[in-house]
Amino acid sequence: MDTTNAKESILYAANIIKNDVVKTLMIESQYINDHYGVKVIFKCENFQRTGSFKFRGALYNLKQSLLQDESRQFCGHSSGNFAQALALAARLNNKKATVFMPENAPKIKVNGVHNAGGQIIFTDNNIMARESTMSQFLNDHPKYKGLHPSNDYQMIIGNATIALEMLADNRDLDVLIVPVGGGGILAGTALAAHYFAPNVDVYGAEPSGAADAKASLVLGQIQPSIQPQTIADGLRTQLGDINFPIIQQYVKDILTVDDEETILAMKDVYQHLKIVIEPSSALPLALIKKYPKVFVNKRIGIIITGGNVDLINLAEIFK
Amino acid sequence: MDTTNAKESILYAANIIKNDVVKTLMIESQYINDHYGVKVIFKCENFQRTGSFKFRGALYNLKQSLLQDESRQFCGHSSGNFAQALALAARLNNKKATVFMPENAPKIKVNGVHNAGGQIIFTDNNIMARESTMSQFLNDHPKYKGLHPSNDYQMIIGNATIALEMLADNRDLDVLIVPVGGGGILAGTALAAHYFAPNVDVYGAEPSGAADAKASLVLGQIQPSIQPQTIADGLRTQLGDINFPIIQQYVKDILTVDDEETILAMKDVYQHLKIVIEPSSALPLALIKKYPKVFVNKRIGIIITGGNVDLINLAEIFK
Repeated sequence: MDTTNAKESILYAANIIKNDVVKTLMIESQYINDHYGVKVIFKCENFQRTGSFKFRGALYNLKQSLLQDESRQFCGHSSGNFAQALALAARLNNKKATVFMPENAPKIKVNGVHNAGGQIIFTDNNIMARESTMSQFLNDHPKYKGLHPSNDYQMIIGNATIALEMLADNRDLDVLIVPVGGGGILAGTALAAHYFAPNVDVYGAEPSGAADAKASLVLGQIQPSIQPQTIADGLRTQLGDINFPIIQQYVKDILTVDDEETILAMKDVYQHLKIVIEPSSALPLALIKKYPKVFVNKRIGIIITGGNVDLINLAEIFK
Repeated sequence: MDTTNAKESILYAANIIKNDVVKTLMIESQYINDHYGVKVIFKCENFQRTGSFKFRGALYNLKQSLLQDESRQFCGHSSGNFAQALALAARLNNKKATVFMPENAPKIKVNGVHNAGGQIIFTDNNIMARESTMSQFLNDHPKYKGLHPSNDYQMIIGNATIALEMLADNRDLDVLIVPVGGGGILAGTALAAHYFAPNVDVYGAEPSGAADAKASLVLGQIQPSIQPQTIADGLRTQLGDINFPIIQQYVKDILTVDDEETILAMKDVYQHLKIVIEPSSALPLALIKKYPKVFVNKRIGIIITGGNVDLINLAEIFK
């Protein structure tokens, strides 16, 4: 992927979407700083429209597509957050989106798609089923364009606007940590850091039960996500050929945490930041606790990627 | 209670505490506005230090007391939030606080007191036990001053700074709604509205299983809180002789909701605002849903009073 013009593209995207996205809050907790031995700033994309960071990239991508052909319709596959984001992005542009979701997607994400006016087609609970069903649909519906939730350069550029905002307001950061599932937010964050704050190290946080991205980085080629086992429902996907080279080039490392560690970090976020996050968003904080030597005394930015969690699941998680 | 100088006192208090309190965020949800048929602004005192609004009044009261006698030590009784607030207010002024709490106080509130450097003396689970134990302690420890969590004019003035901030930034509000337990936040909010936005109607939201404040208002004298039955642990207390006259004079009405209605509102806050609140803080939103004719088409400010909820309790509540 040629990222030569990424700096200009990120600034352009930020400008294109600025009237429709929330410039999300950044917060800190004295308790967390004291107990983790680092200074952490949290960027709250759980307060973004549709409750996750995905709305930025979806909106940017869709708007760019409409510039080329304004009669287009849109579809996409998603574990849940991209589906909501695409549905709202479409509605704001007087379009309707069709999304392919796994049957085990959290109910809050299913409801979110309906609230945003999207149409859902359910598939089996794996990424291959979603992709093949959508592929068939696209064959049958030539007016539709499929937007990918993570392995798409416009998505990556849209995601990069989050780190852009963080870095603009926090010039002293040493590290950025984001979760890695499909790789879209990791690639976008790494690109933004490379072009706007080259001294900042970017880390990916991945569940040890779904560590295909870590394996991909170690082996130098994309590894499939086979039967991922993690509570982090947003991270059960795999890298793609567009984001993987960016991750290889610009990400410092991908580190893994167990679900138990993720749950402890999640509890700290609920109790001390008083914000609602989904399990995926707790991984970066868990990483700091697990690898103290890597992060000690650093000034760290964490992107809270989303807050779409079923309250019933929450009860199970905290039990 | 002579409130003639309340306007000046509230402005003075806001200035005294401004460097130590968080000027808390105000947020809105399109979903909630659409589904409740009103415009609601939420003032997030769950993001206040120690996780609740109580910190403002505790700090102001303690600072005023130290002006009179800087050798004083402090104690107070509390269902939990005032205890944490007093402990931190004391520590910031190089003092230690002793607090009397019920044995059934949420663990997060107990831990919060310890985190803030306070000392806890546990009592039986009712307001009389807390008051009588503290009264005995004060007899035995003449250097100590007891600060009351709600029935204290300085507390009320400190609480009023929240509505002051809300009203300054939202000049078009018609209504303010806050929960009522001990009556401190209701009295403070009503005073602030009277002096800074006299056209704004102030309502108290009370659990129907602990509706002593509503009964007090109807009967014209303070009714005791006898065996209150509600999940809203912060609202199991009763009005006092200082805040009751203010409530009688300046509050439009107190309305009640059942716990089931509170839980539904609480779910909407978690799912659509993505913030962590304790049950008490959900009552004002529940009130809007229960009394649509009172609130239809109004622009409403709600003070989210606190976010100190045990995650295990949360699991029980959402089950």
